[in-house]
Amino acid sequence: MCSVISRVRPVQRALALTLRLRTSTEGSSYAAAERRRFCPGVSNDIHPLRAPSRSYCSRVALTQGLLFKQLFESESSTYTYLLADTETKEAILIDPVLETIDRDLKLIHELGLNLKVAVNTHCHADHITSTGLMKKRLVGLKSAISKLSGASADIHLSEGDKINFGKHYLTVRETPGHTDGCVTLVLGDQSMSFTGDALLIRGCGRTDFQQGCAKRLYESIHQKIFTLPDHCLVYPAHDYRGQTASTVGEERKFNPRLTKSVEEFVDIMNNLNLPKPKKIDISVPANLVCGVHEV
Amino acid sequence: MCSVISRVRPVQRALALTLRLRTSTEGSSYAAAERRRFCPGVSNDIHPLRAPSRSYCSRVALTQGLLFKQLFESESSTYTYLLADTETKEAILIDPVLETIDRDLKLIHELGLNLKVAVNTHCHADHITSTGLMKKRLVGLKSAISKLSGASADIHLSEGDKINFGKHYLTVRETPGHTDGCVTLVLGDQSMSFTGDALLIRGCGRTDFQQGCAKRLYESIHQKIFTLPDHCLVYPAHDYRGQTASTVGEERKFNPRLTKSVEEFVDIMNNLNLPKPKKIDISVPANLVCGVHEV
Repeated sequence: MCSVISRVRPVQRALALTLRLRTSTEGSSYAAAERRRFCPGVSNDIHPLRAPSRSYCSRVALTQGLLFKQLFESESSTYTYLLADTETKEAILIDPVLETIDRDLKLIHELGLNLKVAVNTHCHADHITSTGLMKKRLVGLKSAISKLSGASADIHLSEGDKINFGKHYLTVRETPGHTDGCVTLVLGDQSMSFTGDALLIRGCGRTDFQQGCAKRLYESIHQKIFTLPDHCLVYPAHDYRGQTASTVGEERKFNPRLTKSVEEFVDIMNNLNLPKPKKIDISVPANLVCGVHEV
Repeated sequence: MCSVISRVRPVQRALALTLRLRTSTEGSSYAAAERRRFCPGVSNDIHPLRAPSRSYCSRVALTQGLLFKQLFESESSTYTYLLADTETKEAILIDPVLETIDRDLKLIHELGLNLKVAVNTHCHADHITSTGLMKKRLVGLKSAISKLSGASADIHLSEGDKINFGKHYLTVRETPGHTDGCVTLVLGDQSMSFTGDALLIRGCGRTDFQQGCAKRLYESIHQKIFTLPDHCLVYPAHDYRGQTASTVGEERKFNPRLTKSVEEFVDIMNNLNLPKPKKIDISVPANLVCGVHEV
Protein backbone atom coordinates (compact mmCIF):
# COMPACT_ATOMS: atom_id res chain seq x y z
CA MET A 1 0.00 0.00 0.00
CA CYS A 2 1.28 3.44 -0.85
CA SER A 3 2.35 5.52 2.14
CA VAL A 4 0.02 8.38 1.21
CA ILE A 5 -3.01 6.12 1.46
CA SER A 6 -4.35 4.85 4.74
CA ARG A 7 -7.25 2.52 5.20
CA VAL A 8 -9.91 2.67 7.90
CA ARG A 9 -9.79 -0.44 10.07
CA PRO A 10 -12.80 -2.78 9.87
CA VAL A 11 -14.00 -1.96 13.38
CA GLN A 12 -13.94 1.75 12.60
CA ARG A 13 -15.73 1.20 9.32
CA ALA A 14 -18.45 -0.83 11.06
CA LEU A 15 -18.85 1.88 13.66
CA ALA A 16 -19.04 4.55 10.97
CA LEU A 17 -21.65 2.53 9.14
CA THR A 18 -23.68 2.17 12.33
CA LEU A 19 -23.49 5.90 12.91
CA ARG A 20 -24.49 6.57 9.33
CA LEU A 21 -27.51 4.31 9.54
CA ARG A 22 -28.63 5.73 12.85
CA THR A 23 -28.38 9.34 11.72
CA SER A 24 -28.99 9.14 8.01
CA THR A 25 -31.21 12.23 8.05
CA GLU A 26 -28.91 14.16 10.30
CA GLY A 27 -25.88 14.87 8.20
CA SER A 28 -24.41 17.43 10.55
CA SER A 29 -24.70 15.24 13.63
CA TYR A 30 -23.19 12.30 11.85
CA ALA A 31 -20.47 14.50 10.45
CA ALA A 32 -19.65 15.93 13.84
CA ALA A 33 -19.54 12.47 15.36
CA GLU A 34 -17.35 11.13 12.59
CA ARG A 35 -15.10 14.18 12.75
CA ARG A 36 -14.47 13.62 16.44
CA ARG A 37 -13.67 9.98 15.89
CA PHE A 38 -11.73 9.79 12.66
CA CYS A 39 -9.89 13.06 12.08
CA PRO A 40 -6.75 12.88 14.17
CA GLY A 41 -4.87 14.94 11.61
CA VAL A 42 -7.12 17.97 11.90
CA SER A 43 -6.22 20.67 14.36
CA ASN A 44 -8.51 20.89 17.38
CA ASP A 45 -8.36 24.68 17.50
CA ILE A 46 -10.34 25.25 14.34
CA HIS A 47 -13.13 27.73 14.67
CA PRO A 48 -16.39 25.92 15.41
CA LEU A 49 -19.07 25.90 12.75
CA ARG A 50 -22.09 28.04 13.20
CA ALA A 51 -24.44 25.92 11.19
CA PRO A 52 -27.51 28.17 11.18
CA SER A 53 -25.64 31.12 9.71
CA ARG A 54 -23.81 29.00 7.18
CA SER A 55 -26.52 26.91 5.62
CA TYR A 56 -26.03 28.44 2.18
CA CYS A 57 -22.48 29.59 2.55
CA SER A 58 -20.35 28.64 -0.43
CA ARG A 59 -17.14 29.49 1.28
CA VAL A 60 -16.03 27.81 4.44
CA ALA A 61 -12.52 27.44 5.71
CA LEU A 62 -12.24 25.38 8.80
CA THR A 63 -8.96 23.96 7.72
CA GLN A 64 -5.84 25.87 8.63
CA GLY A 65 -2.91 25.69 6.30
CA LEU A 66 -4.79 24.36 3.28
CA LEU A 67 -4.03 25.62 -0.20
CA PHE A 68 -6.90 25.18 -2.62
CA LYS A 69 -7.19 25.96 -6.33
CA GLN A 70 -10.11 25.34 -8.63
CA LEU A 71 -9.12 25.21 -12.31
CA PHE A 72 -11.26 24.87 -15.43
CA GLU A 73 -10.73 23.24 -18.82
CA SER A 74 -13.16 24.87 -21.22
CA GLU A 75 -13.41 22.30 -24.03
CA SER A 76 -14.83 19.57 -21.80
CA SER A 77 -15.99 21.98 -19.06
CA THR A 78 -13.96 20.00 -16.54
CA TYR A 79 -12.87 21.27 -13.14
CA THR A 80 -9.46 20.25 -11.85
CA TYR A 81 -8.66 20.76 -8.17
CA LEU A 82 -5.30 21.31 -6.54
CA LEU A 83 -5.03 20.89 -2.78
CA ALA A 84 -1.89 21.19 -0.71
CA ASP A 85 -0.59 21.49 2.81
CA THR A 86 0.96 24.97 3.00
CA GLU A 87 3.59 23.80 5.47
CA THR A 88 4.81 20.48 4.08
CA LYS A 89 3.93 21.46 0.46
CA GLU A 90 2.56 17.98 -0.18
CA ALA A 91 -0.16 18.25 -2.79
CA ILE A 92 -2.81 16.25 -4.59
CA LEU A 93 -4.51 16.94 -7.90
CA ILE A 94 -8.05 15.82 -8.72
CA ASP A 95 -9.23 15.17 -12.31
CA PRO A 96 -6.42 16.80 -14.30
CA VAL A 97 -7.01 17.18 -18.05
CA LEU A 98 -4.50 16.49 -20.81
CA GLU A 99 -5.06 19.83 -22.55
CA THR A 100 -4.16 21.85 -19.44
CA ILE A 101 -1.17 19.86 -18.21
CA ASP A 102 1.27 22.72 -18.86
CA ARG A 103 -0.84 25.25 -16.94
CA ASP A 104 -1.23 22.86 -14.03
CA LEU A 105 2.44 21.90 -13.86
CA LYS A 106 3.48 25.56 -14.05
CA LEU A 107 1.23 26.40 -11.11
CA ILE A 108 2.50 23.46 -9.07
CA HIS A 109 6.06 24.55 -9.81
CA GLU A 110 5.40 28.22 -8.99
CA LEU A 111 3.86 27.34 -5.65
CA GLY A 112 6.77 25.04 -4.82
CA LEU A 113 4.50 22.05 -4.29
CA ASN A 114 5.41 18.39 -4.14
CA LEU A 115 2.63 16.61 -6.03
CA LYS A 116 2.15 13.22 -4.43
CA VAL A 117 -1.02 11.87 -6.02
CA ALA A 118 -3.04 12.65 -9.14
CA VAL A 119 -6.45 11.11 -8.64
CA ASN A 120 -9.38 10.66 -10.99
CA THR A 121 -12.87 10.54 -9.54
CA HIS A 122 -13.76 8.00 -12.25
CA CYS A 123 -12.87 6.81 -15.73
CA HIS A 124 -13.94 9.88 -17.72
CA ALA A 125 -15.72 9.62 -21.06
CA ASP A 126 -15.45 13.24 -22.18
CA HIS A 127 -11.75 14.04 -21.87
CA ILE A 128 -8.40 12.34 -21.49
CA THR A 129 -6.73 12.55 -18.11
CA SER A 130 -3.23 14.01 -17.85
CA THR A 131 -2.34 11.64 -15.04
CA GLY A 132 -0.17 9.34 -17.11
CA LEU A 133 1.76 12.10 -18.86
CA MET A 134 2.16 13.98 -15.60
CA LYS A 135 3.77 10.91 -14.03
CA LYS A 136 6.38 11.04 -16.78
CA ARG A 137 7.17 14.64 -15.91
CA LEU A 138 7.05 14.53 -12.12
CA VAL A 139 9.27 12.02 -10.35
CA GLY A 140 7.50 10.18 -7.55
CA LEU A 141 3.98 11.13 -8.58
CA LYS A 142 1.44 8.33 -8.17
CA SER A 143 -1.85 7.94 -10.00
CA ALA A 144 -5.01 6.86 -8.22
CA ILE A 145 -8.48 5.76 -9.24
CA SER A 146 -11.11 3.52 -7.72
CA LYS A 147 -10.58 -0.22 -7.85
CA LEU A 148 -14.08 -0.64 -9.29
CA SER A 149 -13.24 1.57 -12.29
CA GLY A 150 -11.26 -1.27 -13.84
CA ALA A 151 -8.56 1.23 -14.84
CA SER A 152 -4.87 0.76 -14.18
CA ALA A 153 -3.21 3.08 -11.67
CA ASP A 154 -0.57 3.02 -8.95
CA ILE A 155 -3.20 3.19 -6.24
CA HIS A 156 -6.61 1.56 -6.33
CA LEU A 157 -9.07 3.23 -4.00
CA SER A 158 -11.93 1.69 -2.03
CA GLU A 159 -14.56 2.96 0.40
CA GLY A 160 -13.04 4.56 3.47
CA ASP A 161 -9.51 4.90 2.11
CA LYS A 162 -7.70 8.10 2.96
CA ILE A 163 -5.40 10.07 0.66
CA ASN A 164 -2.99 11.96 2.87
CA PHE A 165 -1.18 15.19 2.01
CA GLY A 166 0.65 16.78 4.91
CA LYS A 167 -1.69 17.04 7.85
CA HIS A 168 -4.76 16.93 5.59
CA TYR A 169 -6.48 14.04 3.91
CA LEU A 170 -9.35 13.13 1.63
CA THR A 171 -11.63 10.22 2.45
CA VAL A 172 -13.00 8.04 -0.35
CA ARG A 173 -16.75 7.46 -0.58
CA GLU A 174 -17.86 5.14 -3.34
CA THR A 175 -20.70 6.80 -5.27
CA PRO A 176 -21.50 4.54 -8.26
CA GLY A 177 -24.32 5.18 -10.70
CA HIS A 178 -22.71 7.34 -13.40
CA THR A 179 -20.10 4.59 -13.64
CA ASP A 180 -19.35 1.67 -11.34
CA GLY A 181 -16.08 3.23 -10.27
CA CYS A 182 -17.20 6.75 -9.33
CA VAL A 183 -15.97 8.08 -6.01
CA THR A 184 -16.58 11.25 -4.03
CA LEU A 185 -13.57 12.60 -2.16
CA VAL A 186 -14.28 14.35 1.14
CA LEU A 187 -11.84 16.60 2.98
CA GLY A 188 -11.05 15.43 6.52
CA ASP A 189 -13.08 18.16 8.23
CA GLN A 190 -15.97 17.63 5.80
CA SER A 191 -15.88 21.24 4.64
CA MET A 192 -15.35 20.23 1.00
CA SER A 193 -16.43 17.37 -1.22
CA PHE A 194 -15.26 16.54 -4.74
CA THR A 195 -18.21 14.77 -6.24
CA GLY A 196 -16.91 13.92 -9.71
CA ASP A 197 -19.77 13.15 -12.10
CA ALA A 198 -22.09 11.87 -9.38
CA LEU A 199 -23.51 15.14 -8.06
CA LEU A 200 -23.25 18.25 -10.23
CA ILE A 201 -24.48 21.75 -9.31
CA ARG A 202 -28.26 21.57 -9.70
CA GLY A 203 -27.73 18.42 -11.75
CA CYS A 204 -26.01 15.04 -11.82
CA GLY A 205 -23.99 12.81 -14.12
CA ARG A 206 -25.79 10.98 -16.89
CA THR A 207 -26.54 7.28 -16.48
CA ASP A 208 -26.99 6.09 -20.05
CA PHE A 209 -23.53 4.74 -20.90
CA GLN A 210 -20.62 2.80 -19.38
CA GLN A 211 -22.18 1.16 -16.30
CA GLY A 212 -24.75 3.89 -15.75
CA CYS A 213 -27.66 3.11 -13.44
CA ALA A 214 -30.04 5.86 -12.33
CA LYS A 215 -31.27 4.05 -9.22
CA ARG A 216 -27.73 3.40 -8.01
CA LEU A 217 -26.79 7.04 -8.61
CA TYR A 218 -29.80 8.27 -6.64
CA GLU A 219 -28.90 5.99 -3.73
CA SER A 220 -25.22 6.95 -3.86
CA ILE A 221 -25.97 10.66 -3.69
CA HIS A 222 -28.57 10.35 -0.96
CA GLN A 223 -26.55 7.92 1.16
CA LYS A 224 -23.01 9.14 0.62
CA ILE A 225 -23.22 12.86 -0.26
CA PHE A 226 -26.46 14.19 1.19
CA THR A 227 -25.42 12.75 4.57
CA LEU A 228 -22.54 15.22 4.68
CA PRO A 229 -23.09 18.48 6.62
CA ASP A 230 -25.23 21.12 4.91
CA HIS A 231 -22.30 23.57 4.80
CA CYS A 232 -20.00 21.07 3.04
CA LEU A 233 -18.95 22.63 -0.26
CA VAL A 234 -19.72 20.65 -3.41
CA TYR A 235 -17.05 20.81 -6.09
CA PRO A 236 -18.11 18.77 -9.13
CA ALA A 237 -16.02 17.49 -12.04
CA HIS A 238 -18.01 19.60 -14.50
CA ASP A 239 -20.26 22.58 -14.85
CA TYR A 240 -21.77 23.86 -18.06
CA ARG A 241 -23.48 27.01 -16.79
CA GLY A 242 -20.69 29.03 -15.20
CA GLN A 243 -21.33 27.82 -11.66
CA THR A 244 -18.23 27.06 -9.61
CA ALA A 245 -19.41 25.57 -6.32
CA SER A 246 -22.44 24.62 -4.30
CA THR A 247 -23.11 23.14 -0.89
CA VAL A 248 -24.70 19.90 0.24
CA GLY A 249 -27.48 21.95 1.85
CA GLU A 250 -28.22 23.77 -1.39
CA GLU A 251 -28.30 20.61 -3.48
CA ARG A 252 -30.51 18.81 -0.98
CA LYS A 253 -32.93 21.70 -1.25
CA PHE A 254 -32.67 22.91 -4.84
CA ASN A 255 -31.32 20.13 -7.05
CA PRO A 256 -34.12 19.71 -9.58
CA ARG A 257 -33.48 15.97 -10.01
CA LEU A 258 -32.35 14.79 -6.61
CA THR A 259 -35.24 16.40 -4.76
CA LYS A 260 -37.58 14.05 -6.62
CA SER A 261 -38.55 10.50 -5.55
CA VAL A 262 -36.33 7.68 -6.78
CA GLU A 263 -39.01 6.65 -9.29
CA GLU A 264 -39.30 10.18 -10.71
CA PHE A 265 -35.51 10.46 -10.82
CA VAL A 266 -35.14 7.20 -12.75
CA ASP A 267 -37.81 8.37 -15.18
CA ILE A 268 -36.06 11.71 -15.72
CA MET A 269 -32.68 10.06 -16.26
CA ASN A 270 -34.06 7.46 -18.66
CA ASN A 271 -35.59 10.15 -20.85
CA LEU A 272 -32.79 12.70 -21.21
CA ASN A 273 -32.05 11.56 -24.77
CA LEU A 274 -28.57 13.07 -24.72
CA PRO A 275 -26.16 12.69 -27.62
CA LYS A 276 -23.27 10.27 -27.23
CA PRO A 277 -20.21 12.04 -25.75
CA LYS A 278 -18.00 13.13 -28.63
CA LYS A 279 -14.80 11.77 -27.18
CA ILE A 280 -16.05 8.60 -25.47
CA ASP A 281 -14.45 6.22 -27.98
CA ILE A 282 -11.01 7.65 -27.44
CA SER A 283 -11.35 8.88 -23.84
CA VAL A 284 -12.46 5.71 -22.10
CA PRO A 285 -9.77 3.40 -23.58
CA ALA A 286 -7.14 6.08 -22.86
CA ASN A 287 -8.33 6.70 -19.33
CA LEU A 288 -8.26 2.98 -18.55
CA VAL A 289 -4.48 3.31 -18.79
CA CYS A 290 -4.01 6.73 -17.11
CA GLY A 291 -4.51 8.61 -20.35
CA VAL A 292 -1.24 7.49 -21.92
CA HIS A 293 -2.92 5.44 -24.64
CA GLU A 294 -1.59 6.81 -27.93
CA VAL A 295 -0.56 10.11 -26.33
CA MET B 1 -26.57 59.24 -0.45
CA CYS B 2 -27.93 55.72 -0.57
CA SER B 3 -28.29 54.06 2.81
CA VAL B 4 -26.19 51.08 1.77
CA ILE B 5 -23.23 53.32 1.06
CA SER B 6 -21.22 54.95 3.80
CA ARG B 7 -18.34 57.31 3.32
CA VAL B 8 -15.19 57.44 5.39
CA ARG B 9 -14.93 60.78 7.16
CA PRO B 10 -12.09 63.06 6.01
CA VAL B 11 -10.11 62.63 9.22
CA GLN B 12 -10.28 58.85 8.92
CA ARG B 13 -9.31 58.99 5.27
CA ALA B 14 -6.32 61.18 6.06
CA LEU B 15 -5.28 58.77 8.79
CA ALA B 16 -5.69 55.82 6.48
CA LEU B 17 -3.59 57.57 3.85
CA THR B 18 -0.91 58.29 6.42
CA LEU B 19 -0.88 54.68 7.49
CA ARG B 20 -0.73 53.57 3.89
CA LEU B 21 2.19 55.82 3.11
CA ARG B 22 4.07 54.79 6.23
CA THR B 23 3.64 51.09 5.63
CA SER B 24 3.41 50.83 1.90
CA THR B 25 5.63 47.78 1.78
CA GLU B 26 3.98 46.14 4.74
CA GLY B 27 0.55 45.21 3.48
CA SER B 28 -0.30 42.98 6.40
CA SER B 29 0.60 45.52 9.06
CA TYR B 30 -1.35 48.22 7.31
CA ALA B 31 -4.26 45.89 6.82
CA ALA B 32 -4.29 44.91 10.46
CA ALA B 33 -4.16 48.54 11.55
CA GLU B 34 -6.93 49.53 9.19
CA ARG B 35 -9.01 46.52 10.23
CA ARG B 36 -8.79 47.53 13.87
CA ARG B 37 -9.78 51.09 13.08
CA PHE B 38 -12.38 50.93 10.35
CA CYS B 39 -14.23 47.66 10.59
CA PRO B 40 -16.83 48.14 13.28
CA GLY B 41 -19.24 45.90 11.40
CA VAL B 42 -16.97 42.88 11.48
CA SER B 43 -17.23 40.48 14.35
CA ASN B 44 -14.30 40.55 16.75
CA ASP B 45 -14.39 36.80 17.30
CA ILE B 46 -13.11 35.86 13.88
CA HIS B 47 -10.28 33.40 13.90
CA PRO B 48 -6.94 35.22 13.75
CA LEU B 49 -4.87 34.89 10.61
CA ARG B 50 -1.85 32.70 10.65
CA ALA B 51 0.00 34.52 7.97
CA PRO B 52 3.02 32.22 7.54
CA SER B 53 0.89 29.16 6.85
CA ARG B 54 -1.48 31.00 4.55
CA SER B 55 0.83 32.81 2.19
CA TYR B 56 -0.37 30.93 -0.89
CA CYS B 57 -3.74 29.88 0.37
CA SER B 58 -6.49 30.51 -2.16
CA ARG B 59 -9.23 29.91 0.31
CA VAL B 60 -9.62 31.95 3.44
CA ALA B 61 -12.77 32.49 5.41
CA LEU B 62 -12.32 34.88 8.23
CA THR B 63 -15.77 36.25 7.79
CA GLN B 64 -18.58 34.50 9.59
CA GLY B 65 -21.98 34.48 7.97
CA LEU B 66 -20.84 35.42 4.49
CA LEU B 67 -22.36 33.76 1.45
CA PHE B 68 -20.11 33.90 -1.60
CA LYS B 69 -20.67 32.70 -5.16
CA GLN B 70 -18.34 33.00 -8.12
CA LEU B 71 -20.14 32.74 -11.47
CA PHE B 72 -18.77 32.70 -15.02
CA GLU B 73 -20.08 33.95 -18.37
CA SER B 74 -18.24 32.02 -21.05
CA GLU B 75 -18.67 34.26 -24.12
CA SER B 76 -16.80 37.20 -22.59
CA SER B 77 -15.03 35.10 -19.93
CA THR B 78 -16.46 37.38 -17.25
CA TYR B 79 -16.74 36.51 -13.57
CA THR B 80 -19.78 37.71 -11.66
CA TYR B 81 -19.71 37.62 -7.87
CA LEU B 82 -22.60 37.31 -5.47
CA LEU B 83 -22.02 38.17 -1.81
CA ALA B 84 -24.61 38.14 0.94
CA ASP B 85 -25.09 38.26 4.67
CA THR B 86 -26.49 34.85 5.60
CA GLU B 87 -28.50 36.32 8.47
CA THR B 88 -30.07 39.47 7.00
CA LYS B 89 -30.02 38.07 3.42
CA GLU B 90 -28.87 41.45 2.09
CA ALA B 91 -26.79 40.86 -1.02
CA ILE B 92 -24.66 42.60 -3.60
CA LEU B 93 -23.73 41.51 -7.10
CA ILE B 94 -20.50 42.48 -8.83
CA ASP B 95 -20.18 42.70 -12.63
CA PRO B 96 -23.34 40.90 -13.75
CA VAL B 97 -23.60 40.10 -17.46
CA LEU B 98 -26.69 40.51 -19.64
CA GLU B 99 -26.50 36.97 -21.07
CA THR B 100 -26.63 35.34 -17.63
CA ILE B 101 -29.29 37.50 -15.98
CA ASP B 102 -31.78 34.61 -15.72
CA ARG B 103 -29.26 32.29 -14.08
CA ASP B 104 -28.26 35.00 -11.61
CA LEU B 105 -31.80 36.01 -10.72
CA LYS B 106 -32.81 32.38 -10.25
CA LEU B 107 -29.94 31.83 -7.84
CA ILE B 108 -30.75 35.01 -5.90
CA HIS B 109 -34.37 33.89 -5.69
CA GLU B 110 -33.51 30.33 -4.62
CA LEU B 111 -31.26 31.55 -1.84
CA GLY B 112 -33.92 33.98 -0.64
CA LEU B 113 -31.62 36.97 -0.98
CA ASN B 114 -32.53 40.63 -1.05
CA LEU B 115 -30.27 42.15 -3.70
CA LYS B 116 -29.48 45.71 -2.65
CA VAL B 117 -26.77 46.82 -5.06
CA ALA B 118 -25.50 45.66 -8.45
CA VAL B 119 -22.08 47.21 -8.90
CA ASN B 120 -19.78 47.34 -11.90
CA THR B 121 -16.06 47.57 -11.31
CA HIS B 122 -15.83 49.79 -14.42
CA CYS B 123 -17.50 50.58 -17.73
CA HIS B 124 -16.87 47.29 -19.53
CA ALA B 125 -15.90 47.15 -23.20
CA ASP B 126 -16.36 43.42 -23.82
CA HIS B 127 -19.88 42.70 -22.59
CA ILE B 128 -23.09 44.49 -21.65
CA THR B 129 -23.95 44.69 -17.97
CA SER B 130 -27.28 43.32 -16.77
CA THR B 131 -27.53 46.01 -14.10
CA GLY B 132 -30.17 48.09 -15.88
CA LEU B 133 -32.39 45.17 -16.83
CA MET B 134 -32.02 43.68 -13.37
CA LYS B 135 -33.28 46.93 -11.83
CA LYS B 136 -36.44 46.51 -13.87
CA ARG B 137 -36.95 43.03 -12.45
CA LEU B 138 -35.98 43.59 -8.81
CA VAL B 139 -37.77 46.31 -6.89
CA GLY B 140 -35.44 48.43 -4.79
CA LEU B 141 -32.22 47.32 -6.49
CA LYS B 142 -29.70 50.11 -6.99
CA SER B 143 -26.92 50.26 -9.55
CA ALA B 144 -23.45 51.48 -8.66
CA ILE B 145 -20.31 52.42 -10.56
CA SER B 146 -17.45 54.79 -9.94
CA LYS B 147 -18.04 58.50 -10.39
CA LEU B 148 -14.97 58.70 -12.61
CA SER B 149 -16.43 56.18 -15.07
CA GLY B 150 -18.75 58.85 -16.44
CA ALA B 151 -21.58 56.29 -16.51
CA SER B 152 -25.03 56.87 -15.08
CA ALA B 153 -26.05 54.87 -12.00
CA ASP B 154 -27.99 55.28 -8.78
CA ILE B 155 -24.81 55.37 -6.75
CA HIS B 156 -21.52 56.94 -7.80
CA LEU B 157 -18.59 55.51 -5.92
CA SER B 158 -15.39 57.22 -4.83
CA GLU B 159 -12.25 56.22 -2.94
CA GLY B 160 -13.03 55.00 0.56
CA ASP B 161 -16.78 54.53 0.08
CA LYS B 162 -18.29 51.48 1.67
CA ILE B 163 -21.02 49.30 0.20
CA ASN B 164 -22.84 47.70 3.10
CA PHE B 165 -24.75 44.41 3.04
CA GLY B 166 -25.86 43.20 6.44
CA LYS B 167 -22.91 43.23 8.78
CA HIS B 168 -20.46 43.03 5.89
CA TYR B 169 -19.19 45.70 3.54
CA LEU B 170 -16.91 46.31 0.58
CA THR B 171 -14.55 49.27 0.53
CA VAL B 172 -13.88 51.09 -2.73
CA ARG B 173 -10.29 51.59 -3.86
CA GLU B 174 -9.86 53.57 -7.06
CA THR B 175 -7.52 51.67 -9.38
CA PRO B 176 -7.44 53.56 -12.70
CA GLY B 177 -5.25 52.63 -15.65
CA HIS B 178 -7.40 50.17 -17.63
CA THR B 179 -10.04 52.93 -17.61
CA ASP B 180 -10.28 56.11 -15.52
CA GLY B 181 -13.19 54.71 -13.57
CA CYS B 182 -11.84 51.31 -12.52
CA VAL B 183 -12.26 50.37 -8.88
CA THR B 184 -11.18 47.45 -6.74
CA LEU B 185 -13.67 46.36 -4.08
CA VAL B 186 -12.20 44.98 -0.86
CA LEU B 187 -14.14 42.97 1.72
CA GLY B 188 -14.11 44.55 5.19
CA ASP B 189 -11.72 42.01 6.71
CA GLN B 190 -9.48 42.23 3.63
CA SER B 191 -9.78 38.51 2.96
CA MET B 192 -11.12 39.10 -0.57
CA SER B 193 -10.61 41.70 -3.30
CA PHE B 194 -12.56 42.12 -6.52
CA THR B 195 -10.06 43.67 -8.85
CA GLY B 196 -12.11 44.14 -12.01
CA ASP B 197 -9.88 44.60 -15.05
CA ALA B 198 -7.03 46.15 -13.08
CA LEU B 199 -5.30 43.03 -11.78
CA LEU B 200 -6.00 39.69 -13.45
CA ILE B 201 -4.55 36.32 -12.45
CA ARG B 202 -0.95 36.40 -13.71
CA GLY B 203 -1.99 39.30 -15.94
CA CYS B 204 -3.72 42.68 -15.99
CA GLY B 205 -6.25 44.66 -18.00
CA ARG B 206 -5.15 46.13 -21.31
CA THR B 207 -4.38 49.83 -21.51
CA ASP B 208 -4.76 50.61 -25.20
CA PHE B 209 -8.34 51.89 -25.39
CA GLN B 210 -10.82 54.04 -23.47
CA GLN B 211 -8.64 56.01 -21.02
CA GLY B 212 -5.99 53.32 -20.77
CA CYS B 213 -2.63 54.30 -19.28
CA ALA B 214 -0.03 51.67 -18.45
CA LYS B 215 1.84 53.82 -15.93
CA ARG B 216 -1.33 54.63 -14.01
CA LEU B 217 -2.34 50.96 -13.96
CA TYR B 218 1.05 49.93 -12.61
CA GLU B 219 0.81 52.54 -9.86
CA SER B 220 -2.78 51.62 -9.03
CA ILE B 221 -1.96 47.95 -8.62
CA HIS B 222 1.18 48.54 -6.61
CA GLN B 223 -0.34 51.22 -4.37
CA LYS B 224 -3.91 49.98 -3.93
CA ILE B 225 -3.84 46.19 -4.41
CA PHE B 226 -0.33 44.99 -3.61
CA THR B 227 -0.60 46.82 -0.26
CA LEU B 228 -3.35 44.41 0.78
CA PRO B 229 -2.33 41.39 2.90
CA ASP B 230 -0.61 38.55 1.07
CA HIS B 231 -3.44 36.15 1.90
CA CYS B 232 -6.12 38.45 0.43
CA LEU B 233 -7.88 36.55 -2.34
CA VAL B 234 -7.85 38.14 -5.79
CA TYR B 235 -11.07 37.71 -7.76
CA PRO B 236 -10.75 39.38 -11.16
CA ALA B 237 -13.47 40.35 -13.65
CA HIS B 238 -12.06 37.95 -16.24
CA ASP B 239 -9.92 34.93 -16.76
CA TYR B 240 -9.16 33.27 -20.07
CA ARG B 241 -7.15 30.27 -18.87
CA GLY B 242 -9.49 28.49 -16.46
CA GLN B 243 -8.07 30.08 -13.34
CA THR B 244 -10.63 31.08 -10.73
CA ALA B 245 -8.77 32.93 -7.97
CA SER B 246 -5.36 34.06 -6.83
CA THR B 247 -3.97 35.90 -3.83
CA VAL B 248 -2.20 39.22 -3.47
CA GLY B 249 0.89 37.35 -2.32
CA GLU B 250 0.91 35.15 -5.40
CA GLU B 251 0.46 38.05 -7.79
CA ARG B 252 3.17 40.10 -6.09
CA LYS B 253 5.50 37.17 -6.58
CA PHE B 254 4.45 35.56 -9.85
CA ASN B 255 2.58 38.09 -12.01
CA PRO B 256 4.74 38.17 -15.15
CA ARG B 257 3.97 41.85 -15.83
CA LEU B 258 3.65 43.43 -12.42
CA THR B 259 6.89 42.00 -11.11
CA LYS B 260 8.72 44.08 -13.73
CA SER B 261 9.86 47.72 -13.31
CA VAL B 262 7.38 50.39 -14.31
CA GLU B 263 9.39 51.11 -17.46
CA GLU B 264 9.41 47.45 -18.51
CA PHE B 265 5.70 47.20 -17.71
CA VAL B 266 4.86 50.22 -19.88
CA ASP B 267 6.91 48.75 -22.70
CA ILE B 268 5.12 45.39 -22.44
CA MET B 269 1.69 47.02 -22.37
CA ASN B 270 2.45 49.30 -25.30
CA ASN B 271 3.46 46.35 -27.47
CA LEU B 272 0.70 43.83 -26.88
CA ASN B 273 -0.85 44.57 -30.29
CA LEU B 274 -4.19 43.11 -29.26
CA PRO B 275 -7.22 43.18 -31.55
CA LYS B 276 -9.97 45.68 -30.81
CA PRO B 277 -12.58 44.13 -28.47
CA LYS B 278 -15.35 42.74 -30.63
CA LYS B 279 -18.18 44.30 -28.65
CA ILE B 280 -16.60 47.63 -27.68
CA ASP B 281 -18.75 49.74 -30.00
CA ILE B 282 -21.98 48.42 -28.52
CA SER B 283 -20.81 47.60 -24.99
CA VAL B 284 -19.36 50.94 -23.92
CA PRO B 285 -22.34 53.11 -24.98
CA ALA B 286 -24.71 50.59 -23.40
CA ASN B 287 -22.72 50.32 -20.17
CA LEU B 288 -22.67 54.11 -19.82
CA VAL B 289 -26.40 53.81 -19.16
CA CYS B 290 -26.42 50.61 -17.02
CA GLY B 291 -26.66 48.39 -20.08
CA VAL B 292 -30.23 49.35 -20.97
CA HIS B 293 -29.23 51.04 -24.23
CA GLU B 294 -31.29 49.33 -26.93
CA VAL B 295 -31.95 46.31 -24.75
